[in-house]
Amino acid sequence: MKQLLVDMDGVLADVYSQFIKMELNESGNLLNLDSLSGMLESEAFPNFQKHVHSEYFFRTVLVMKDSVEGLNYLNNKYKVLIVSSATEFPNSLKEKVEWLHQYFPFISWKQIILCGEKDSIKGEIMIDDHYKNLRNFDGRKILFTQPHNNLIKNDSIERVNSWKEIISLL
Amino acid sequence: MKQLLVDMDGVLADVYSQFIKMELNESGNLLNLDSLSGMLESEAFPNFQKHVHSEYFFRTVLVMKDSVEGLNYLNNKYKVLIVSSATEFPNSLKEKVEWLHQYFPFISWKQIILCGEKDSIKGEIMIDDHYKNLRNFDGRKILFTQPHNNLIKNDSIERVNSWKEIISLL
Repeated sequence: MKQLLVDMDGVLADVYSQFIKMELNESGNLLNLDSLSGMLESEAFPNFQKHVHSEYFFRTVLVMKDSVEGLNYLNNKYKVLIVSSATEFPNSLKEKVEWLHQYFPFISWKQIILCGEKDSIKGEIMIDDHYKNLRNFDGRKILFTQPHNNLIKNDSIERVNSWKEIISLL
Repeated sequence: MKQLLVDMDGVLADVYSQFIKMELNESGNLLNLDSLSGMLESEAFPNFQKHVHSEYFFRTVLVMKDSVEGLNYLNNKYKVLIVSSATEFPNSLKEKVEWLHQYFPFISWKQIILCGEKDSIKGEIMIDDHYKNLRNFDGRKILFTQPHNNLIKNDSIERVNSWKEIISLL
């Protein structure tokens, strides 16, 4: 059974919706997804640092469309590990585990890795929205489209635009 | 530079002292280390589950003797990753990161991995007090003596009894 590494933010968790909602609450500015193309989240959202370090940001984030069914399917077919860059944001850690338990109850705590960098995690397939995580991965690389990675073109990666596309691929 | 995986509980963190203190507070029983030889912590400490899930257990644990100087030395000589089995205990996650930042400020969040199982973490040397973590590791295995592992004998591991011994070995 192949080991499959699945990212949280931007793949299972719809962090863009959360950033947009929190920026609206914070400043009254409603940001448009199309205008954020090619910008990192930290560039696109003026209050990025404040929001990712706040409480409840990760606990209340929306689940990505079709990801529950999608991950359940993958979990029966692969050895799934959820790998999230999280130790930079101490408030996120418990929230991420609780959020996974709530929405993806078929994922055990044994399958969760919260880390700083992902280059020390073994796997054969990686699904991630950040090219920096895929770049040095020595297995099959699947890039989940988000505004920040829209402009990236690389022959070594496969791009998917939805969980339905992940399922058709894997 | 070789990658070195260093465990927290029972290697950097003196969890036995914490368990004994909390059992004393809880029940008035002062447990003796010598009487706990060969028993897993979950067998040795009647209130194990309650205490590892409680708040502050991991935040207030004592630092293992000589581990600050020892880890600082290793951190200059190896690519150190702190790898802790922690996702089973959601309250421990933030506490572990804060505890590391307090006592081992030279360890960056980039060097911390909080996981369920350790068999997916890449490394060339592992220091751990739990044989179950070392058993399937394909690098150099160093067992840090604790009462629960006292009776384990295995030619594939090197046993150390203190941080001073780690330094003389590495």
